[in-house]
Amino acid sequence: MKKMVVAIGAVALMGISAVAADALVQKAKNAGLKPIPESKSELYKLIDNPKNRITDAKVELGKKLYFDPRLSKSGLISCNTCHNLATGGVDGVDAATGHKWTANPHHLNSPTVYNAVFAQKQFWDGRSPDLEDQAQGPIQAAPEMAATKEHVEKVINSIPEYVKEFKKAYDNPNMKPTFKDVADVIGIFERTLVTPSRFDKYLAGCDKALSKEEKEGLKIFIDKGCVSCHNGVALGGSMQPFPAVGKYKYAHIGDFKGDKNGMVKVPTLRNVLETRPYFHNGAVWTIEEAIKIMGETQLGVKISDKEAEKIKTFFGALTGKKPYVRYPMLPPSTDKTPKPDLN
Amino acid sequence: MKKMVVAIGAVALMGISAVAADALVQKAKNAGLKPIPESKSELYKLIDNPKNRITDAKVELGKKLYFDPRLSKSGLISCNTCHNLATGGVDGVDAATGHKWTANPHHLNSPTVYNAVFAQKQFWDGRSPDLEDQAQGPIQAAPEMAATKEHVEKVINSIPEYVKEFKKAYDNPNMKPTFKDVADVIGIFERTLVTPSRFDKYLAGCDKALSKEEKEGLKIFIDKGCVSCHNGVALGGSMQPFPAVGKYKYAHIGDFKGDKNGMVKVPTLRNVLETRPYFHNGAVWTIEEAIKIMGETQLGVKISDKEAEKIKTFFGALTGKKPYVRYPMLPPSTDKTPKPDLN
Repeated sequence: MKKMVVAIGAVALMGISAVAADALVQKAKNAGLKPIPESKSELYKLIDNPKNRITDAKVELGKKLYFDPRLSKSGLISCNTCHNLATGGVDGVDAATGHKWTANPHHLNSPTVYNAVFAQKQFWDGRSPDLEDQAQGPIQAAPEMAATKEHVEKVINSIPEYVKEFKKAYDNPNMKPTFKDVADVIGIFERTLVTPSRFDKYLAGCDKALSKEEKEGLKIFIDKGCVSCHNGVALGGSMQPFPAVGKYKYAHIGDFKGDKNGMVKVPTLRNVLETRPYFHNGAVWTIEEAIKIMGETQLGVKISDKEAEKIKTFFGALTGKKPYVRYPMLPPSTDKTPKPDLN
Repeated sequence: MKKMVVAIGAVALMGISAVAADALVQKAKNAGLKPIPESKSELYKLIDNPKNRITDAKVELGKKLYFDPRLSKSGLISCNTCHNLATGGVDGVDAATGHKWTANPHHLNSPTVYNAVFAQKQFWDGRSPDLEDQAQGPIQAAPEMAATKEHVEKVINSIPEYVKEFKKAYDNPNMKPTFKDVADVIGIFERTLVTPSRFDKYLAGCDKALSKEEKEGLKIFIDKGCVSCHNGVALGGSMQPFPAVGKYKYAHIGDFKGDKNGMVKVPTLRNVLETRPYFHNGAVWTIEEAIKIMGETQLGVKISDKEAEKIKTFFGALTGKKPYVRYPMLPPSTDKTPKPDLN
């Protein structure tokens, strides 16, 4: 008889657990949390650019250019320098540092390129509508890659393999690649940098994908109101006031005040345990502190050490599988390629 | 009858061509030019380190560390910054530039890491006997990665995945990786960076591997005496006087005078068309000029424009197949990982 009781108990527990799990998933969905679609066609609907469709040829070319330091004035800095695919898509320093070792003048931190496609806007002040447009910025910014459009166009057109790849990718035998074309294929490559995680499996119905502790963290994350900004597929990516209700204790670092309405782009929380330091000015080095500051400044709630720890545990489920990247072998420079200029 | 004559003529020509080809291969071998062995076991005999054998686990770990900018003081510079595997194993600038955008104080150019294993010594002044020893230099050099041994050891031991990988690679559950261990696995990874080319196929007996023009270039390369320094598997890699007989016209750039005997390491010519600029001080941007200067300063011979062009054509056959490199996803930092210091 004992065995039977245990068995019934187990079934009953499973039933309760299943109901609770369903309830939490439903709660997460109601709060606006969305998965990266498992289906490739669904995913492509989300990440594609209708004006410049994703194709393998464009992605491969974009990858090369993403890694090519010759696009920069110095020949030493590529997109991957600040948005390093090996380290969570970021550089790990507080303020982005580029040409001539110059830090970002507003002390802005490099956001991760992973899942950036899911953001509604690009840049901390949301001034860019998409990744193709965004990619034009850092290449030209004086403290980043410091190049001119003309430099980039000269480099690309001095390397026959690049010209050939553009012609092939756009099926245009007369193509003379422009600066915009370069930024466009870089943006297209970046669109593919999505990292499905256990959290997506969980939202898709796999209850076991999260541990009990991660579910507890998720529940606190929702109940505290973090989801009011960290929602959608990106768990972030919209423009929000910052600080909203409290004072940001590191506000003296840098002079960034958001867009003209004081709105700041909400960073994605995907892979957040890999993208320290935190906040637009990279002032915070532990995720627990970041969580607690967010409670104070944005929600006006106190998040205890224990709660922050549990939310952190949930964040572990947001660490995603990175796309397989074969390190590109870049076509060699020619005598026509502009020489690097380190000044 | 006409058909028959043609056929006989063709056979006769093939015969002559075969003899001439054999003669040139023999001439190349007699001049000390050696192939990268096709056989894996033969290759391993050449590249292995008897004191620290190459294994897959060490190579994979070494690759991660080669790409890891957290070994540097700033967190921004990795081995791959100056020895970029995407661009011929070099950085493409005249003087290596590292921490705080500081150029090498002697204006020394970053040599390629590809096939560096075949060199007799490492560094331009040959002060290092092997790649494991060499790897310790740039990590600590103030104008390069600017790290201390302690910094590197703190970084590695703060990242549990790295410690685990070291323990596994060395089958030592008590291992606490040291700075030397880090440099050792980086060196081991570098040993695998060899690039077999058409020239190796040619030396191995495949006459068709080189075009007629490339063979002409090879013949001039040998006849002019370039092989007196550019020989062996690396087509370089020994210590030689520089300049030997003439004056180096860019001698005023930088203050490098070689080792205490005025000897300078001969750069490999493998992939030389991808590793501009040329010479220890990166003063020369076209291979034709480099070839002609070498004739004057080292051999006391004049190499005409046409001859230089042909030698360049031969160099094209030295462009090798690069190893397949999956871009590594590095284990994340922890709260114990030292923060980057850009000063």
